[in-house]
Amino acid sequence: MIKLALDMMGSDLGPEELSKSVIKYVADKKEVTLLCFGQKDKLQSLEGIERVKIIDCQQVVPMEIGSLQLLRLKDSSLMKACKAVKDGEADGIVSAGSSGGLITAATLILKNIEGVERAGFCTPFITAKKDKQVVILDVGASNENSASELVGFAKLGTLYAKDLLKISNPAVYLLSNGSEEGKGTKEIKEAYKLLKEDTGINFQGNCEGRDALDGEKDVVVTSGFPGNIFLKATEGTASLMNGMLKKAFKRNIFSKLGYILARKGFTEMKSSLDYRKIGGAIFIGVNGVVVKAHGSSNAEAFYHAIDLGYRLVDSHFVEDIRKEFKE
Amino acid sequence: MIKLALDMMGSDLGPEELSKSVIKYVADKKEVTLLCFGQKDKLQSLEGIERVKIIDCQQVVPMEIGSLQLLRLKDSSLMKACKAVKDGEADGIVSAGSSGGLITAATLILKNIEGVERAGFCTPFITAKKDKQVVILDVGASNENSASELVGFAKLGTLYAKDLLKISNPAVYLLSNGSEEGKGTKEIKEAYKLLKEDTGINFQGNCEGRDALDGEKDVVVTSGFPGNIFLKATEGTASLMNGMLKKAFKRNIFSKLGYILARKGFTEMKSSLDYRKIGGAIFIGVNGVVVKAHGSSNAEAFYHAIDLGYRLVDSHFVEDIRKEFKE
Repeated sequence: MIKLALDMMGSDLGPEELSKSVIKYVADKKEVTLLCFGQKDKLQSLEGIERVKIIDCQQVVPMEIGSLQLLRLKDSSLMKACKAVKDGEADGIVSAGSSGGLITAATLILKNIEGVERAGFCTPFITAKKDKQVVILDVGASNENSASELVGFAKLGTLYAKDLLKISNPAVYLLSNGSEEGKGTKEIKEAYKLLKEDTGINFQGNCEGRDALDGEKDVVVTSGFPGNIFLKATEGTASLMNGMLKKAFKRNIFSKLGYILARKGFTEMKSSLDYRKIGGAIFIGVNGVVVKAHGSSNAEAFYHAIDLGYRLVDSHFVEDIRKEFKE
Repeated sequence: MIKLALDMMGSDLGPEELSKSVIKYVADKKEVTLLCFGQKDKLQSLEGIERVKIIDCQQVVPMEIGSLQLLRLKDSSLMKACKAVKDGEADGIVSAGSSGGLITAATLILKNIEGVERAGFCTPFITAKKDKQVVILDVGASNENSASELVGFAKLGTLYAKDLLKISNPAVYLLSNGSEEGKGTKEIKEAYKLLKEDTGINFQGNCEGRDALDGEKDVVVTSGFPGNIFLKATEGTASLMNGMLKKAFKRNIFSKLGYILARKGFTEMKSSLDYRKIGGAIFIGVNGVVVKAHGSSNAEAFYHAIDLGYRLVDSHFVEDIRKEFKE
């Protein structure tokens, strides 16, 4: 039986919306118990459901929060859910709340796995190849990272690609401002050398932001600050182009008819661009599975986030990290 | 009479393609003389044209080049075109060659304007608002930049937005991993404080990569490394989505018909996404106008790059920088 602790209070759409995904998930998967942390009066729809436990927490973590302030919110859904993982009551936590809050709570309570210098915030991205994802980390847990931290990210990303994407020998790249050796910051140049010598990693060199999503890469390693800029730039560009697309179709009666005729392809395109299906980002390197669902998650998105948590536990991802970093 | 030095050897499509834009540009604009640097035998179509001078240079700068190697190519089209600007024979240079080569040549030959700590590579981007551009710099001349260099970029960007985009009081932002004060690297936090106190700059705080293209920003300031990641991430995402769009329309006979019906809107969309119309990136802060056309520039793109150079000279952009940084 896999047990997941869910922070029900983080989403913009409220705990009632997330409850729908809980009900559906336990109905679909028999081998799971969901511990739902949140304000009891807002989780009434979950009462009496098999393999669902409600743990009442009246405190709510705001979207912007500092470490000290978070430590004071001991009875919040986020902190209690993390504590449940620490105490072995659950195998992982899923939250749609503040990324910063989740990363801080997970770092303080779960702590890094022995040998892991820095845990990384990691997002799978869609690529130009159908059904092919690329794993990019760190996308914002850190600002700057040392060369040895970047090597650590390469190892973590490799394990993720093996366990979750089922790629046997993942191709690893460093995100830089040019594909040749010698491009990038001091840390990247140093990490390049270390990775080239590391026989445990299938290192393929530098890649530019333009090529990271071409479907040829399995893992792309970056410091947190440029990684976050990369992540947000792709979001901004996609939203810009979606806006243009809508305008193009709404232009006149012919373009509207055109949309109706071409709709099926666009539904497919939208579906493969849909972050809701990817499930969310994960924070890897700490003692426990940590999944961050998008803040605007609806029931469908949160369902996929729970499922990502389930698959991470099921694939023994955390144990694999422990083994890899112990050596 | 405005005089521009053109490096005719840089483009992937060859000097013959670029020559077409030279012929068209001098026909369209009477107040311009174009000095064309390149292999004479490949510029035959330009012979005898009024206000076009051919300067034979047999050496060609390769796409990947180090500073020392470049210095040895004194008789290359790139180096000679830069030299013409230095010697006052031309007001600016336009090249579709290697960005690195152009930046190195311009830095070594033209040198920074007095008071400018670092020159910046700057690209205008389209935004979610029709006909509204945002200026982002540095997108790759440097790797890391100090806080005072970032303040310098804010000043340079402000002048560009005033002179070229005709915005009277440009809104300036710092690109960071969160919009609140205190987000980002050490340099960004420090630049934030300096910019807040600077009465000459209309500083509006941090902005995330997601919001940089929303049309509300006029100037976005970043260190070169994350700036380059931002630039390439937008290119990669746009190319990913364009590929998906094509597939969606090619799906079947109905979607193809749909495309025909909606085509006008898509042509407009493509046109506003078209870097060829923006003309290129500019390298600002050195003694002379420096325009970098895209490496895959066709005649239309190079025409717009020449025109960008013309407008920069015509608006006295370089003199305005000299005045601003002298104070």
